Amino acid sequence: DFDPNADAKRNKIWQLMEYYLGPDVGSIQRGIVNHVEYTLAATRFSFATEECYRATAFSIRDRLIETFNDTNEFFTAKDVKRCYYLSLEFLLGRAMQNALVNLDIEPNYKKALADIGYNLEELYEHEHDPALGNGGLGRLAACFLDSMATLNYAVWGYGIRYTYGIFEQKIVEGRQVEHPDYWLVTANPWEIERPDVTYAVRFYGHVDTYKDDKGRERHRWTGGEIVQAMAYDNPIPGFDTYNTINLRLWKACPGKEFDFHAFNRGQFLDAVKERQRAEYISAVLYPNDNTWEGKELRLKQQYFFVCATIQDCLRRFKKKEGRSWDELPSKVCFQLNDTHPTIAIPEMMRLLIDIEGLDWDKAWDLTRQCFNYTNHTVLPEALEKWPAHLIEKLLPRHLLLINDINYKFLCEVRESWGDVGEKLSKMSIYQEGYEKMIRMANMAVIGSNKVNGVAAIHSELVKKDLFPEFVDYYKAKGQPDKFVNVTNGVTPRRWIHCANRGLSNLFSEWLGSDSWLKELTMLQGLVNHLDSTELQKQWADVKKQNKVKLTKWIKLNCDIDLDPENMLFDIQVKRIHEYKRQLINCFYIIHRYFKLKKMSPGDRDKQVKRACLIGGKAAPGYAVAKTIIKLCNNIGLVLNNDPDTSKYLKCVFMPNYNVSNAQTIIPASDISQHISTAGTEASGTSNMKFVMNGGLIVGTMDGANVEIREECGEDTMFIFGALEPEVAGIREKAKNGNYPISAELREVMDAIVSGKFSLGDGEAHSEFVGLIEKIRNNGGGYNGDFYILCHDFPSYCKANEQVDALYKDQTNWIKTSIKAAASMGKFTTDRSIKEYGQIIWKLEDAERPAPDQSPM
Amino acid sequence: DFDPNADAKRNKIWQLMEYYLGPDVGSIQRGIVNHVEYTLAATRFSFATEECYRATAFSIRDRLIETFNDTNEFFTAKDVKRCYYLSLEFLLGRAMQNALVNLDIEPNYKKALADIGYNLEELYEHEHDPALGNGGLGRLAACFLDSMATLNYAVWGYGIRYTYGIFEQKIVEGRQVEHPDYWLVTANPWEIERPDVTYAVRFYGHVDTYKDDKGRERHRWTGGEIVQAMAYDNPIPGFDTYNTINLRLWKACPGKEFDFHAFNRGQFLDAVKERQRAEYISAVLYPNDNTWEGKELRLKQQYFFVCATIQDCLRRFKKKEGRSWDELPSKVCFQLNDTHPTIAIPEMMRLLIDIEGLDWDKAWDLTRQCFNYTNHTVLPEALEKWPAHLIEKLLPRHLLLINDINYKFLCEVRESWGDVGEKLSKMSIYQEGYEKMIRMANMAVIGSNKVNGVAAIHSELVKKDLFPEFVDYYKAKGQPDKFVNVTNGVTPRRWIHCANRGLSNLFSEWLGSDSWLKELTMLQGLVNHLDSTELQKQWADVKKQNKVKLTKWIKLNCDIDLDPENMLFDIQVKRIHEYKRQLINCFYIIHRYFKLKKMSPGDRDKQVKRACLIGGKAAPGYAVAKTIIKLCNNIGLVLNNDPDTSKYLKCVFMPNYNVSNAQTIIPASDISQHISTAGTEASGTSNMKFVMNGGLIVGTMDGANVEIREECGEDTMFIFGALEPEVAGIREKAKNGNYPISAELREVMDAIVSGKFSLGDGEAHSEFVGLIEKIRNNGGGYNGDFYILCHDFPSYCKANEQVDALYKDQTNWIKTSIKAAASMGKFTTDRSIKEYGQIIWKLEDAERPAPDQSPM
Repeated sequence: DFDPNADAKRNKIWQLMEYYLGPDVGSIQRGIVNHVEYTLAATRFSFATEECYRATAFSIRDRLIETFNDTNEFFTAKDVKRCYYLSLEFLLGRAMQNALVNLDIEPNYKKALADIGYNLEELYEHEHDPALGNGGLGRLAACFLDSMATLNYAVWGYGIRYTYGIFEQKIVEGRQVEHPDYWLVTANPWEIERPDVTYAVRFYGHVDTYKDDKGRERHRWTGGEIVQAMAYDNPIPGFDTYNTINLRLWKACPGKEFDFHAFNRGQFLDAVKERQRAEYISAVLYPNDNTWEGKELRLKQQYFFVCATIQDCLRRFKKKEGRSWDELPSKVCFQLNDTHPTIAIPEMMRLLIDIEGLDWDKAWDLTRQCFNYTNHTVLPEALEKWPAHLIEKLLPRHLLLINDINYKFLCEVRESWGDVGEKLSKMSIYQEGYEKMIRMANMAVIGSNKVNGVAAIHSELVKKDLFPEFVDYYKAKGQPDKFVNVTNGVTPRRWIHCANRGLSNLFSEWLGSDSWLKELTMLQGLVNHLDSTELQKQWADVKKQNKVKLTKWIKLNCDIDLDPENMLFDIQVKRIHEYKRQLINCFYIIHRYFKLKKMSPGDRDKQVKRACLIGGKAAPGYAVAKTIIKLCNNIGLVLNNDPDTSKYLKCVFMPNYNVSNAQTIIPASDISQHISTAGTEASGTSNMKFVMNGGLIVGTMDGANVEIREECGEDTMFIFGALEPEVAGIREKAKNGNYPISAELREVMDAIVSGKFSLGDGEAHSEFVGLIEKIRNNGGGYNGDFYILCHDFPSYCKANEQVDALYKDQTNWIKTSIKAAASMGKFTTDRSIKEYGQIIWKLEDAERPAPDQSPM
Repeated sequence: DFDPNADAKRNKIWQLMEYYLGPDVGSIQRGIVNHVEYTLAATRFSFATEECYRATAFSIRDRLIETFNDTNEFFTAKDVKRCYYLSLEFLLGRAMQNALVNLDIEPNYKKALADIGYNLEELYEHEHDPALGNGGLGRLAACFLDSMATLNYAVWGYGIRYTYGIFEQKIVEGRQVEHPDYWLVTANPWEIERPDVTYAVRFYGHVDTYKDDKGRERHRWTGGEIVQAMAYDNPIPGFDTYNTINLRLWKACPGKEFDFHAFNRGQFLDAVKERQRAEYISAVLYPNDNTWEGKELRLKQQYFFVCATIQDCLRRFKKKEGRSWDELPSKVCFQLNDTHPTIAIPEMMRLLIDIEGLDWDKAWDLTRQCFNYTNHTVLPEALEKWPAHLIEKLLPRHLLLINDINYKFLCEVRESWGDVGEKLSKMSIYQEGYEKMIRMANMAVIGSNKVNGVAAIHSELVKKDLFPEFVDYYKAKGQPDKFVNVTNGVTPRRWIHCANRGLSNLFSEWLGSDSWLKELTMLQGLVNHLDSTELQKQWADVKKQNKVKLTKWIKLNCDIDLDPENMLFDIQVKRIHEYKRQLINCFYIIHRYFKLKKMSPGDRDKQVKRACLIGGKAAPGYAVAKTIIKLCNNIGLVLNNDPDTSKYLKCVFMPNYNVSNAQTIIPASDISQHISTAGTEASGTSNMKFVMNGGLIVGTMDGANVEIREECGEDTMFIFGALEPEVAGIREKAKNGNYPISAELREVMDAIVSGKFSLGDGEAHSEFVGLIEKIRNNGGGYNGDFYILCHDFPSYCKANEQVDALYKDQTNWIKTSIKAAASMGKFTTDRSIKEYGQIIWKLEDAERPAPDQSPM
């Protein structure tokens, strides 16, 4: 039906849409109040703070949508190269303040709300943390998104919209109790539901072979179950730019495709029930950090999100008319955040070969150019290996493709190197044995253009310990730079400007502007003022205020009183894991307690007062980690109630460590603990956040600590413990019984075993004893202290003594703290993402110009 | 924190909210386009019809919210008496057109959309029917809501927000295949989510007894499982009024209350999964019509919605300060739509006694005054009886209360009547036997103020057959009018004005205004013009256009060609049920086919051409009903492909009969079939819709047919079959073998049994034979033809012959059709609801005055 007025009508719509919402206080108020009335359908009689939070969120969403849509249009019009960041976890934290800061309208919102009787900071506290991640890996992805948007890169994140994020941790009788985190109780204003963006995802079924009209043998995957992936977009605004990028998360829905035969007569209700189970695929985030759980559902999650994502990205690529597949690597690349999305590699092959009809070699050539892989850990328990029979059952077509990929790759190697049996078997995707396993890391390396680690020391270990054969092979093939390092970072927008406004204001005042928020190396300018007593005073004041705030938080959440004026705040917050060694921290706290107990009251008064604050979640199935939480709480009960010492030493387990709590905790630290056994922590990023916020590190030569020390200077960090190259030898010696335990540590262990911290709880006692006896059990070929706590304990105590010594000299302490913070320029994710953009993704700056329309 | 400016700030909010959206074309366009941009986050580049539908829906929602909120405020301010209509089903049908018509802005929306290139009628088709009902009972509730709003009654509906409504029926190889009706694929603009309106609902657990501080014995129900009911509000705008009322539907969510012990270590994922099962309570509507399914989940649904509802209503009652419980009956009443919500009676007792602390007698006195019960059927298979042990397990406190209620009631009866054993056992809530059963209807009668049937004949049967003892008892107690009749109706806004705009315009033209839409008896005015050839011509034209529209629908959905110019459209649409006797219709179609086959071509040409159109869903577990669908489809295959006769007789099974299809089907009928065995159909309401739309009835003296005939005249209806008082005798005779089958019917049956309609399908054949043989099997104490098809068949044929005779005289036919339609004034739900309001609920008119603010 041709309508001669179609253009005029279309123009009318365009005119109606070309206005922007005004940034002025009046427009903001009208927007909020309209959302109260029309979106929430609340009346002026029931307009409580919760409604005000939700309406304000919706009004910010309106503004995000404007810039989000315009950015997408700009990317499409310019046909820019795009990168897709695939991650099973995005630990975003709260959105409201971040959005206002990045959209540069926080002050106007503050005023608009104050004017009608609401406090913006109070509203911030109404937002439920979207906690779709376990720890460092997910939080890194979130910081990366902030920098990608800020740097005007055309990157989108892709992941899963879990109905339940990481559990909420409550402490009941000193133990972790997990509560489900049902963060979607109310409509989430920060996401855009996309019912029109759905893809079918198949599981199970079988593969048919047939000849196509050109006589080529082709494969068709049919049968099985089909679920639908529906997109939810989460706009990610850049800072000081008009760009807003996207985090697209998939929700699993019952398939639209329909199996008639499943619906037998009278079984309708059961069949509906069965269909609904599809939703379980995206129901829960697996709550394990740095430990892999080989459950079928986990593999389903991986394939589910990867399948929808690759389909979505290829659809976008194909949208432009006249595309040749040869253009793909110049327009599309993927970053695999750890091996979790590695099934994307055979999925890409499947789509290119089975659906698009490309030849195998062409498809493989394109695939290898498009993918890149970030390794996040060298811990053996975290390396993903899936039983081949499970993949065969769940993804029969992919197993065939994996076999082809592996066979052709091994043939190539054999061509270059000859039949180097052991090397070949290490490079094979298959791990042979009673149960054949698919090594996802090997597949990721073989299918990728670049492979990177996340800190200098870690990237070396990746090459040296994990993939030495691959490194040699690719070097020989003329790809010496396939393995690279990109050191992690954090975004200073959230971790300084939002979390520590006092410090942010101080920085801007002393540096003359807030440009440091985009150019973090400018912080170095503070070093010029190191001797300014005014700066030192301001610095100390900011820290004091943050400690007061945390003290209130601890009073509220733990009902424990701290003394922010006089106590050194010593913080260790991170997932509870043996390799992170919360236990050596506990040992030291007990040791310090015993030392205090033995002192005269007069001597005690000369000691630095210390509050030891520990927080973090344990995987629900990780018994040892949960015992450590219980021990920590029991130590607190003993110490905090001992009238002799509690003034000088307290121990608190802070419950439910998450992003928003971190924003209160981190700025309050005097020292923080990053004390993993050398060679186990890939990078760590909270270490960076602490130092930027004026805290000093007690740490090992591990992960990013090494580079932080390089940047800030040896005098800014309290380093202890074995170096990475020494660790293997220490373990070897321990196995042979050559493993001394210091008298101080023996005293601590004996006390624990004697029940001093069991408080009459038999179950806890036997757990504590088990913990200690395992560590003590060395020799005779066995090394119970795998993470060498006993070896590192004496130097750890020394490091802590150095802390006390420096802290007694407050001026020196403050200067050291300023110097360290000012030297953290390297550790912004802006720097990390620039390196990814230039070295790995080859992306251009795609900055959207300022909109030229005048506001409505 | 006292803020001296709090009032000024609050005023500012009020001022910002006191404007209304303008009804002009420009405001409407801005509203739609804003929703495209900000609610859907679509750009002008992706603004397809689906987006336009959704944005238009959101813009109408904005207007509904204005009138909804203002009406609620008015009710609250006036402290009006409220009635709550409790129903497990509300078969609303599409909302968009209804809202525009009732808000009186359809023309402006039409223009606003045309202006930007969209057709309003096309948008209507984008709405997914909310089909939260099976058939008549649910649709009645929906028509009632429309009249309640229109009559300015302060009534709210309460029910369940099923995730899956009644299944979508597809016909595959002539058989019904059920598809899940996932109507919530996209955010539903017609509902308002109320995350702040939630109630805890307990299941299982146990009852503790304790003494309160006054020394009274009290009960506390604890333990078990807790799920959360969350409210979703569906605004129901009245026609030609500023009132908009509410249909509040509950969704089941995982409980907020938390059972620590369920979360054992490592079982976190399973525990989350378990919790999610709570949602299954509101997942699916039971797809049975007039048949009760005794599943635990069904009982859970009933208690779930009733528990949340009574809590919500009592909370509203208590909101006003200084209330005395004595006021309750003058401020609150409940209408139980069938026995499904009867557990509300003991729930009210529980809340008043256990939670509010009232004494038993006071609580019972208030409860009995507040509740009223509508009976919808006398079919034994539809009468709810729950095993006492199931109620004890699921609702232990309620079983105790039921016992008390029953014991005290029987004591009362015994006091009046003495020990009248059999009568007492019929009046008891308990049905004794091997498995003790709770009779919900008895509980509803005992706990209610009024009990009503839904048509004159039905209300008599309720008294005569179901509750004769109760009628006697209450008469003796001075309550002769406890049992009353309220004849059903339908809303002319949806069923004439929306469904048949041509006829609506005709009515308004000939009656001088559209006032008939609120005062349906005004239609009688048409009778003055019965002899006007202009009216007759217009009448015939409207019918023709509607038949053309349905012909297109059938071509699209069934790929069968009809001849709307020359064929009489004979329609039977309703749930497939033996008592509704679709089978006798099939028999007649076959008979008519045989008659035609036997005729010479010349004789055939003299016959009235007929299209027999049948539609309706069968319960998925109801095998006989599904066989009837298959038979009907096979008859169609034989007839429609017979070159001798297909020009004269066609048979079509129309798939997926639902509200919006009904709006196309009903206006196209020449005759419609309402042919239940006398005494089985309580009322029927589609009979009313058909006659209002100018179709005549072929029917039995059953349900509302009786009253329609009274109103319209005997000459307007083709009545046949046994009368209700005769039926029992006929069955009795049949049991004794005295049951003649006419030669015509025998021919039909023999043909079916011979396989003429089996088309080589062995399974279908054996089902058809089973159907016939059962009906033929009478005598020897057995009556296989319970619904007396054989008895009624000859008179049914005669009625059909009368149809043909009258149809041949088109002028007379049209006059009869006009006369019948013009006489339907009684059958508006406005009349029904006025009767409920005056006789049962004692409600006042609560009309909100016109808003005095000028539009924005």
